[in-house]
Amino acid sequence: MSTERSILDLADFQPAAANGLLDRRAFCKGGAALAAAMTGYTLSSRAGAQQLTDDPWTRTPGASLKAYGTPSRFEARVTRSLSNPNGEPRTQHGRTPHHLINGTFTPNGLHFVISHTGNPDIDPSQHRLVIHGLVERPLVFTLDDLMRYPMVSRMTFIECGGNSAPLWSPEPVEAGVQAIHGLISCAEWTGVMLSTLLEETGIDPRAKWFIAEGADASKLDRSVPLGKALDDAMIVLYQNGERIMPGNGYPLRLLLPGWEGNMNIKWLRRIELTEEPALSFYEARTYTPILPSGKAYNFYFLQEVKSFITHPSPGLALNGAGFYEVSGLAYSANGRISKVIVSADGGNTWAEAALQEPVLSKAFTRFRLPWRWDGGPAVLQSRAWDEAGNVQPTRSELVARRGEARRVPSVLGFPSQHYNGPTSWRVGADGEVQHVYA
Amino acid sequence: MSTERSILDLADFQPAAANGLLDRRAFCKGGAALAAAMTGYTLSSRAGAQQLTDDPWTRTPGASLKAYGTPSRFEARVTRSLSNPNGEPRTQHGRTPHHLINGTFTPNGLHFVISHTGNPDIDPSQHRLVIHGLVERPLVFTLDDLMRYPMVSRMTFIECGGNSAPLWSPEPVEAGVQAIHGLISCAEWTGVMLSTLLEETGIDPRAKWFIAEGADASKLDRSVPLGKALDDAMIVLYQNGERIMPGNGYPLRLLLPGWEGNMNIKWLRRIELTEEPALSFYEARTYTPILPSGKAYNFYFLQEVKSFITHPSPGLALNGAGFYEVSGLAYSANGRISKVIVSADGGNTWAEAALQEPVLSKAFTRFRLPWRWDGGPAVLQSRAWDEAGNVQPTRSELVARRGEARRVPSVLGFPSQHYNGPTSWRVGADGEVQHVYA
Repeated sequence: MSTERSILDLADFQPAAANGLLDRRAFCKGGAALAAAMTGYTLSSRAGAQQLTDDPWTRTPGASLKAYGTPSRFEARVTRSLSNPNGEPRTQHGRTPHHLINGTFTPNGLHFVISHTGNPDIDPSQHRLVIHGLVERPLVFTLDDLMRYPMVSRMTFIECGGNSAPLWSPEPVEAGVQAIHGLISCAEWTGVMLSTLLEETGIDPRAKWFIAEGADASKLDRSVPLGKALDDAMIVLYQNGERIMPGNGYPLRLLLPGWEGNMNIKWLRRIELTEEPALSFYEARTYTPILPSGKAYNFYFLQEVKSFITHPSPGLALNGAGFYEVSGLAYSANGRISKVIVSADGGNTWAEAALQEPVLSKAFTRFRLPWRWDGGPAVLQSRAWDEAGNVQPTRSELVARRGEARRVPSVLGFPSQHYNGPTSWRVGADGEVQHVYA
Repeated sequence: MSTERSILDLADFQPAAANGLLDRRAFCKGGAALAAAMTGYTLSSRAGAQQLTDDPWTRTPGASLKAYGTPSRFEARVTRSLSNPNGEPRTQHGRTPHHLINGTFTPNGLHFVISHTGNPDIDPSQHRLVIHGLVERPLVFTLDDLMRYPMVSRMTFIECGGNSAPLWSPEPVEAGVQAIHGLISCAEWTGVMLSTLLEETGIDPRAKWFIAEGADASKLDRSVPLGKALDDAMIVLYQNGERIMPGNGYPLRLLLPGWEGNMNIKWLRRIELTEEPALSFYEARTYTPILPSGKAYNFYFLQEVKSFITHPSPGLALNGAGFYEVSGLAYSANGRISKVIVSADGGNTWAEAALQEPVLSKAFTRFRLPWRWDGGPAVLQSRAWDEAGNVQPTRSELVARRGEARRVPSVLGFPSQHYNGPTSWRVGADGEVQHVYA
């Protein structure tokens, strides 16, 4: 690679933070700026005549089209990791491989799933949604009924309250982004506003909550303040354009943008308006984080501002010194992400990352920053702010407030929830990446 | 359903156009307004105790999670239609079922595909991208090389120049939205700006074009003005978050936002900078629309402003008079969609549709409008404008300029391309929907 460059503003390539983090202006300037930043770090080779010969797959006709496309066989490792792969009669987790995908949302085949009693095989022509309780007119809706209502589409994340729970462990777990942060995904959801259906049923003025119940064998139910129903709650029929996946609630689910994952009831069959919450199993036990004082958060609705780096991360070893893109995901239940900063020296110095437009409320925001790795040890971290002014707390702030995990660390389960502090990836001189506390 | 309503601004429910089209303000007002609009047209039934009993799928545990999720078996009909399902040695088309999906982009399994010699089964570790010709430094890039460059994500449509070609037929074809408009899809594409890679190679000042070539057996190649490379052309690695599908160019494709589909070279292996276009097979023959004068458009890059209604459309019969949502897709190579109007009386009167936010440049914009069908015959049409001021021409304007099809109509092939006029769906008193000219 030549070192002559015609278009170059050196100011953009002064490190913005220690250990090789470049300024995000280098990113915004696109090609010219970044190529210049890469000067001296060869990513490509001189082309020779041998590169213009035909590969085997060019010499014969290819495979026939399929009616429903699937990824290349060379991507067979890009799957959800399953906590209970044989489907024994207990909860199953399927975690999203965020290190193997890119962009701003999660494809349907890889959206995270937690199912407590498997995925019911619901016949949509037989399924009904009932809205009853403190309403003026209890109503039952078929899928065909719902299809006639005005719809909206919105991109939003769903995150399990237990996502990132391994970070409550007193010692850093040996795990990567899929095991640690795989219980969050983002999709475009299309359906009917719950408020539209409540206008149909009418609302008894005594109603303050609603209880949503699924048609799975555990009949998972959660209580939701009625205000959320009148704000942005949706009855979802489509996920990323196609009908919702079986593991995500086919044929319909409740969507509570930004709120704890399990409240977004899948296989939704019933909404009952009530004066009081139900204090059902999952809200009185499983999703009730216990504090060091012994008291508990009984209702912890919001998935607060968080970010983590997906590239590089464990399993994606760096191949020698030089230029890399640092990229990750940020999101908040409180609206749009306003800023993400990245450190390559364990939090001593920081540079501001570029945010991929459009930045949407309660959705994944992909952040990116160019990084010139000098080949020495480095610790990568990110930290995000949302438009409401919230910032990710440090891990020590969180631990002081909430305590660490109170049983043996395991990637599959921690008693504490709602970790939204930073994640630290240590890059070794060999290019391997591992999880550390820093 | 009761007729009492507490929240109601009658002004919003005055028809905005003849034959029951309501004002888009009814849409924007959400639940209250729309429920009111539906008064007297029962979409749901009174709930009774029998709706609260368990269905069979609630009585037993469900299915085990899969590592890669797929749609419910009840959605097995939601597939691409294949023009050459047995993969005989000729072109295959797979068309997107826009009437069976919703939202603002196309899931990967259903993205349209045209392959002239099948889909090559490319080993990404062996694949190379060569950039040569009028450059300062010819370079070869591996996939691992490309993964280190700064990336961008953008939602954009790709449309075949032959999409909507059945509308050049002198008589309306008996077909629906999949057969007529199935050769367009929209996805979020993530990859490296081509301009970034050209900064690496440098550009010889004599270069005015580049020739992009695929690694498929037909080595499909097209010539592109160099200005597009320096504007928004991308080398794409990811489609809707996961690695690009085999039929869409795995492991990488060229993306030319808004430009004729076949120029977005799939399975990209070579970019050669040149002074002149190649006048290759597909640009000198197949994608050269012939005009009534006998002359031809040799290069017709832009997929101009267009819209069509997806719901209702043929195959989605209406089930009795009452409220329905009219919804469809609009897009333009010239930027954002600025306005879509809808008619229910064959173009005599029009109402403005609501546009789903965010409205993105060169991407699908979903439009929606509430419609109170009186049960009588109706003809639905849409018409779109883009921010550059372009409007969809009428069919007669287009035919006057370009001529009609000059061979027997067939859904699978028409000699004329780049139809961007309106589409008309006639709704019969029986609720059936059919394609007409109006």
